[in-house]
Amino acid sequence: MHLHKIKFLLSIISLALGCSIPPLTGFAKANEIIERFTSEKITFKLHRLTKNLDHPWGMAFLPDDRLLITERNGKLKIFDGSSLKEITLTDFPDIYTRGQGGLLDVTPHPNFSENNLIYFTYSHPLSSGSTTALAQAKLQGNVLSNSQILFIAKTRSDTSHHYGSRIKFDRQGFLFMTVGDRGQRHNAQRLDLHAGKILRLTENGKPAPGNPFVNHSNALPEIYSFGHRNPQGLSLNPATGDIWLSEHGPRGGDELNIIQSGKNYGWPIITYGKEYIGGSIGQGTHHPNMSQPIHQWTPSIAPAGITFYTGEAFPSWQGNLFTSALKFKLLVRQEIKNNKVVLEERLLEGEVGRIRAVTQGPDGLLYLISDESDGALYRLSPL
Amino acid sequence: MHLHKIKFLLSIISLALGCSIPPLTGFAKANEIIERFTSEKITFKLHRLTKNLDHPWGMAFLPDDRLLITERNGKLKIFDGSSLKEITLTDFPDIYTRGQGGLLDVTPHPNFSENNLIYFTYSHPLSSGSTTALAQAKLQGNVLSNSQILFIAKTRSDTSHHYGSRIKFDRQGFLFMTVGDRGQRHNAQRLDLHAGKILRLTENGKPAPGNPFVNHSNALPEIYSFGHRNPQGLSLNPATGDIWLSEHGPRGGDELNIIQSGKNYGWPIITYGKEYIGGSIGQGTHHPNMSQPIHQWTPSIAPAGITFYTGEAFPSWQGNLFTSALKFKLLVRQEIKNNKVVLEERLLEGEVGRIRAVTQGPDGLLYLISDESDGALYRLSPL
Repeated sequence: MHLHKIKFLLSIISLALGCSIPPLTGFAKANEIIERFTSEKITFKLHRLTKNLDHPWGMAFLPDDRLLITERNGKLKIFDGSSLKEITLTDFPDIYTRGQGGLLDVTPHPNFSENNLIYFTYSHPLSSGSTTALAQAKLQGNVLSNSQILFIAKTRSDTSHHYGSRIKFDRQGFLFMTVGDRGQRHNAQRLDLHAGKILRLTENGKPAPGNPFVNHSNALPEIYSFGHRNPQGLSLNPATGDIWLSEHGPRGGDELNIIQSGKNYGWPIITYGKEYIGGSIGQGTHHPNMSQPIHQWTPSIAPAGITFYTGEAFPSWQGNLFTSALKFKLLVRQEIKNNKVVLEERLLEGEVGRIRAVTQGPDGLLYLISDESDGALYRLSPL
Repeated sequence: MHLHKIKFLLSIISLALGCSIPPLTGFAKANEIIERFTSEKITFKLHRLTKNLDHPWGMAFLPDDRLLITERNGKLKIFDGSSLKEITLTDFPDIYTRGQGGLLDVTPHPNFSENNLIYFTYSHPLSSGSTTALAQAKLQGNVLSNSQILFIAKTRSDTSHHYGSRIKFDRQGFLFMTVGDRGQRHNAQRLDLHAGKILRLTENGKPAPGNPFVNHSNALPEIYSFGHRNPQGLSLNPATGDIWLSEHGPRGGDELNIIQSGKNYGWPIITYGKEYIGGSIGQGTHHPNMSQPIHQWTPSIAPAGITFYTGEAFPSWQGNLFTSALKFKLLVRQEIKNNKVVLEERLLEGEVGRIRAVTQGPDGLLYLISDESDGALYRLSPL
């Protein structure tokens, strides 16, 4: 890692600043906390837009600027800029809400304006244990109905962790979906299971045409890449169209990967991480047939949602990758050049709790959710 | 009950008959047992076509004359007239195989010859307990793939019984599906749950147009009729196009009903049955707003699959309703006139075990499956 790490984080409590804070307008309401932070490039402020979120996991803006937020407990909420409402779920799959399981990611269909379809992932109960599944439903107003289970990952585990489950549509309209190793690490190398894989699906949850293993017997046709541990971040690199991925390592060895068709990302054969109880895992850090990460974090930061920033609100951040992190409760900003991380800055460390996801709003601002029992939605805007 | 019950059942062991049995041909193989029975109208023989079935539950002929047979343990088998093969299930939902739960009914799409689709019902695991669900998959050769869960019944029960789950396409191409009360009897009267209901669905598992409660708030749009206990038989009356239904009563009070849109069949408000431990249930046997059965059996026979006979092989049985029964291990033949049972005859009592389903073959013969751990497929043919 040839990174020049700079940590310029300064947090200044708004109350201490007194009159230097501009007056609040619009949806800047009573709940709001304003703090001012200085990044290497700019100074920004942090608003808490709403609280009362119980372990929010995924979020996605709709074309009408409303923000969908999942809660791990199985509820789906919507924030319209001023108030948080609960979506009425008139027919919704039964969700296994234990451990890390629950209602997980959400994203609208690329043509949501016409078809009102949203996609969500969740922990699907099995007769023994659970697995990661994808479903679709129609959102009309604040009512979700006509849900349909599109895909149920084939795994072999009765643990309640490592579901993966981030979803993202690419520019061709195919849906990338991550599935964790479900705590059975060697399954990440088995092509007859979906555990530890990145999947590429049609909008109907079927294997996308051109997937690398469609003609291999004993390999599942949904698989796009394999050898992943617990991937919980997906973002489209606007400069290249590639899908970038974050994944949790064991103890150390968190990774940032560019997903390529048919590639093996090595878990658990190669990793930069160690066993939790000490001791090495696998064969080391490199293997001639396995892909190297773009970046790895040791010690672990526990990276979750990631997003490439493309907005106008923070011109100096354009093209940067933002990674939400659970362990150090921070937001990582990385400058990328030629698919390499050339600078990393750690923001907001410990300020808002375990950050589960980060996304860019239609206003070009950055939005965060904190995965806590008293979780909240935050917005970063330039000062 | 104004029935004239006649029981002419005579069983004569084939070995005792010696040379009077015609020589076996075709798929009359070593496993076969032939016995001769005399009904009121005719004399018929019984062949055991295959054994090695583990609690078979549903069966359906394909247009190519092969017979699909479900086993409660989750296997799907196919009998081609001479041998029984197991269908390879390449992507199949996880099935809750406990108690009365498991893989249950099966039926081909009305246009199976063109689309190769089959429909099946099964016990779908929930995070607590299970429910009745409908899925679709493509059968090509002996391989079933592309399975898709179409409908998951909304119930509230963690018991492992009263799934209902018989399915039948009507002449308009809508799929009728039964759901039992799941052991929570009062749920049969609640229109916000699917328990204790007959549903009418499109081929995609959606509410069929014209269903009676589509415009009622707080009522589920899939519901066609309600107040059912555990309906496990469905057949289309060829004379009228009506859907007939059998259902298990509590202790006594098994029912045969003609299903009409929006009607309440009374369970557990009215019933001819009693509590297992003694004592009455509900308000009696009649209620002005609730439908009366066409027929009721007290004591219970435990009726499962039913079929109207329309074949040429038994001309004197044409238009008769056959009901398979678990408790007395028999096949009930009923003559129907103007939607009334005018004669009932009990056949095969105790001869082949608990009979779970009866269907008519493309050859006009009747086929039975016995729901035992050493279950078998039988055929009735004229002697």
